[in-house]
Amino acid sequence: MTFVRNAWYVAGWSPTFGRELTPLTIMDEDIVVFRTEAGKAVALTDECPHKRLPLSKGKLIGDSLQCGYHGLTFGCDGKCLRVPGQSNLPPSAWVRAYPLHEARGILWIWMGEVEKADPALVFDLPEFDDPRWAPHHGDALQIESNYLALADNLCDPAHVSFVHPTTLGNPESEDVPIDCAREGRTVVTSRWIRDAPPVGFFKAFGNFEGNVDRWHYYYLHAPCVAVIDFGSAASDEAIGEEERDKGVRLFALHFLTPVSETRSIDHWMHLRNIGLDDEEMGERMNVQFRIAFDEDKAILEAIQAREAKPPARRPLRIAVDRGPNLLRRVIAEMLEEESSPSDEKEPVQAVS
Amino acid sequence: MTFVRNAWYVAGWSPTFGRELTPLTIMDEDIVVFRTEAGKAVALTDECPHKRLPLSKGKLIGDSLQCGYHGLTFGCDGKCLRVPGQSNLPPSAWVRAYPLHEARGILWIWMGEVEKADPALVFDLPEFDDPRWAPHHGDALQIESNYLALADNLCDPAHVSFVHPTTLGNPESEDVPIDCAREGRTVVTSRWIRDAPPVGFFKAFGNFEGNVDRWHYYYLHAPCVAVIDFGSAASDEAIGEEERDKGVRLFALHFLTPVSETRSIDHWMHLRNIGLDDEEMGERMNVQFRIAFDEDKAILEAIQAREAKPPARRPLRIAVDRGPNLLRRVIAEMLEEESSPSDEKEPVQAVS
Amino acid sequence: MTFVRNAWYVAGWSPTFGRELTPLTIMDEDIVVFRTEAGKAVALTDECPHKRLPLSKGKLIGDSLQCGYHGLTFGCDGKCLRVPGQSNLPPSAWVRAYPLHEARGILWIWMGEVEKADPALVFDLPEFDDPRWAPHHGDALQIESNYLALADNLCDPAHVSFVHPTTLGNPESEDVPIDCAREGRTVVTSRWIRDAPPVGFFKAFGNFEGNVDRWHYYYLHAPCVAVIDFGSAASDEAIGEEERDKGVRLFALHFLTPVSETRSIDHWMHLRNIGLDDEEMGERMNVQFRIAFDEDKAILEAIQAREAKPPARRPLRIAVDRGPNLLRRVIAEMLEEESSPSDEKEPVQAVS
Repeated sequence: MTFVRNAWYVAGWSPTFGRELTPLTIMDEDIVVFRTEAGKAVALTDECPHKRLPLSKGKLIGDSLQCGYHGLTFGCDGKCLRVPGQSNLPPSAWVRAYPLHEARGILWIWMGEVEKADPALVFDLPEFDDPRWAPHHGDALQIESNYLALADNLCDPAHVSFVHPTTLGNPESEDVPIDCAREGRTVVTSRWIRDAPPVGFFKAFGNFEGNVDRWHYYYLHAPCVAVIDFGSAASDEAIGEEERDKGVRLFALHFLTPVSETRSIDHWMHLRNIGLDDEEMGERMNVQFRIAFDEDKAILEAIQAREAKPPARRPLRIAVDRGPNLLRRVIAEMLEEESSPSDEKEPVQAVS
Repeated sequence: MTFVRNAWYVAGWSPTFGRELTPLTIMDEDIVVFRTEAGKAVALTDECPHKRLPLSKGKLIGDSLQCGYHGLTFGCDGKCLRVPGQSNLPPSAWVRAYPLHEARGILWIWMGEVEKADPALVFDLPEFDDPRWAPHHGDALQIESNYLALADNLCDPAHVSFVHPTTLGNPESEDVPIDCAREGRTVVTSRWIRDAPPVGFFKAFGNFEGNVDRWHYYYLHAPCVAVIDFGSAASDEAIGEEERDKGVRLFALHFLTPVSETRSIDHWMHLRNIGLDDEEMGERMNVQFRIAFDEDKAILEAIQAREAKPPARRPLRIAVDRGPNLLRRVIAEMLEEESSPSDEKEPVQAVS
Repeated sequence: MTFVRNAWYVAGWSPTFGRELTPLTIMDEDIVVFRTEAGKAVALTDECPHKRLPLSKGKLIGDSLQCGYHGLTFGCDGKCLRVPGQSNLPPSAWVRAYPLHEARGILWIWMGEVEKADPALVFDLPEFDDPRWAPHHGDALQIESNYLALADNLCDPAHVSFVHPTTLGNPESEDVPIDCAREGRTVVTSRWIRDAPPVGFFKAFGNFEGNVDRWHYYYLHAPCVAVIDFGSAASDEAIGEEERDKGVRLFALHFLTPVSETRSIDHWMHLRNIGLDDEEMGERMNVQFRIAFDEDKAILEAIQAREAKPPARRPLRIAVDRGPNLLRRVIAEMLEEESSPSDEKEPVQAVS
């Protein structure tokens, strides 16, 4: 099992959820989401504890959820309010209620211990509030792949030269070395490709006439949030690493949600520092992103399909794996931490 | 394994079977059914003992069944009559012949020990011969569910309020207590809902102007036959429990056939005490039944799908489960009885 | 595991392969085939040793194959030529290269030990070069069946009377005895049906007016090549067994390729001694063959589907099984030989 539970995951874009009962599966858990009459989102275990019918097959009565088989009714906190045909409520008549947090048009869900669900831990970016930046939502890409293979891909600037030759990469970057660092639970991989022709994306949106300096900074906030800071500036401006705002700069955000060990959802969006009022430019950029992310999806699904067969050999490790290797260590630490008792007692002193 | 073998099961409606080779699967056993030239139904194991080809891929030669691979030919009793290319018949050249019984337009099959296949045990109802009643055949509903979950449903009047709100139930019955009794291998669950508006079915067929008294008697003859006696009478008539013939009364019959541990067929039909010569009324009633039984199918298949995941918790038991719990005890007894040696010897006296 | 590795198998018809990357699965091994710029066929393991992406998702750069994920590049011998982002080549950076041989419009692949891949062992027939014979390619029939069940079928003249009643068989042959012999690793089953009406195939192509003598000789060259010599001559000519060229005579060739334990491909073709320049006759014959081979496919797939259930009984053995039984012994010997150490040392003398 590779799931880190104590983390906020994206349940979906906010407008996806309303008064209808929406079933989701996250980390193999079946969850039903709905909004109360007042509009607040609620997430409960999508299974009646009586006969296991998904509660999403039932109906809302006000803010209560009634099972579609025998009418057991649950409140927003998951407690049973009614068992038709009897006056008492059995103590085991409840379902799990998941902590939720809603911000920036995104509904976040906490899959771990309730008391650790701190809204301050929800991912955010100051640029969302910065008038020099325009955010633009994207899609929810369902990928038949373990989420870690997808996260590997987001610590791995090397693949763009080969997987995205028409949009985000080109041959000039094939052998450019990659920097790799860890900052707490964030893995940062990056490289600059100086004085080279612009890639397809910046040909389309940069109006560059000559060579550019191009950068890729991948921030993978383990387990499941990636920020890709990438952009280009005319090479004759010779900007420094910290002067990226002088160029055409984007943040591509990926929020990974593990559905099962072999399926994930990637909710993606971008922020950009050009065409702030140009919605149509945002959509045209998303068309390019969709091309690129479908290329990733094809690669990752082909690899996942191979996992059905045991590997014939030990995997080959190469230089560009440093980012993914670092990520796997961070994930292993987080899993190890979750498997330890959360409130450890002082060791009992052995009587001597 | 949850299958009770020593019982008559419905193989299908009689008109379904003719001279063509019809493959069936019952309790995971592959069976081929056909009629002889004289019209008598025959059921044999649908697998040649030579190379395992389904015999239903072969052809009838008179009343004999010839395998489509090498021409081995079997008679109606399952004995091999011919092995092309050799003159002798190997002793192991036979297939199983299943006892059959045909009555009331239904073909019944016995899945257990041949010597126990007593036609007197085939389900029947005196109302089939009663001129005050009209029988009307229905469908064969294939349900992706273990047959016991389906049988539970047929010991469970409580679900109609929630699963069938437009046809057989309404909110007035939600909290009305249920009587539950065992009569031999029959589980009887029942309730009366007195002085309430009629449900959709009786609005359509009863011509009631005011409130009605409505009854539901569910007779589950374990393992696989259910008779649901339900009806309504005007409340101001104040009929007694044994005066149900004074109202609009129906018997809905369900014959459950286990296909596998996760699939069942429900052959259903009804008898009614109104509109005896009105075939068209019978069809309109069946339209209502189809709506209701498709609602059951949706519920049961959603539950069966959940069985692919181990349950996270022990199931919650509630008051309305008494009927299904009783049924499970009857089934357990029948399975226990079948697993015991059928002709037990006196225990040998230990030498002391 | 039933696969004999040290043998030449058909990878496909030669024109199937070109500069595009063609993925194949043989014996559960994923293989990618392509032609070099000079037209020579190459077969490599279709999986990058780095992240397991199928190399067939990559692209050719000249005669080298570049992985579509991180650009690792392999030569025609399977050795890695480049790992982008680093200058050294890890010793484990290679994929397997399979020996190939191309002849008669067929690409053959060797699945076993490379040093045993002797082109002299590739199946051939002198009639390919004989001006009195016309070869005619057929199809590649994918069959959901273990290849040995298919090979059984090709040691089994008895089935044609029952499986192919309109094309290759008729009732006259049902009880005619079959001769069976072993010649090295070839199983030969045969029979003559003398003085009987012609079967559908020879009605269509023989212009016979009366009865014919019909022969079937099945040569199964274990593990995977079958030659079926069959034909007819007018009975009043009373030809001898070695005078088959006097009649209308065909060789139907079947080249079996095991894809997995439950799937096989049958590449089939024919040679004929009539209508040598009549391509259209060849196509009409293939139409008849397609009918017959689809009948085999239906039988074999129905049997394979049954293998998902454990058999309830020991299989019945009958007289016509002698050919298949002999084949299974040859296969068992070949598997036994492959599992033994290939260069056995003299046993060490125990010190006494």
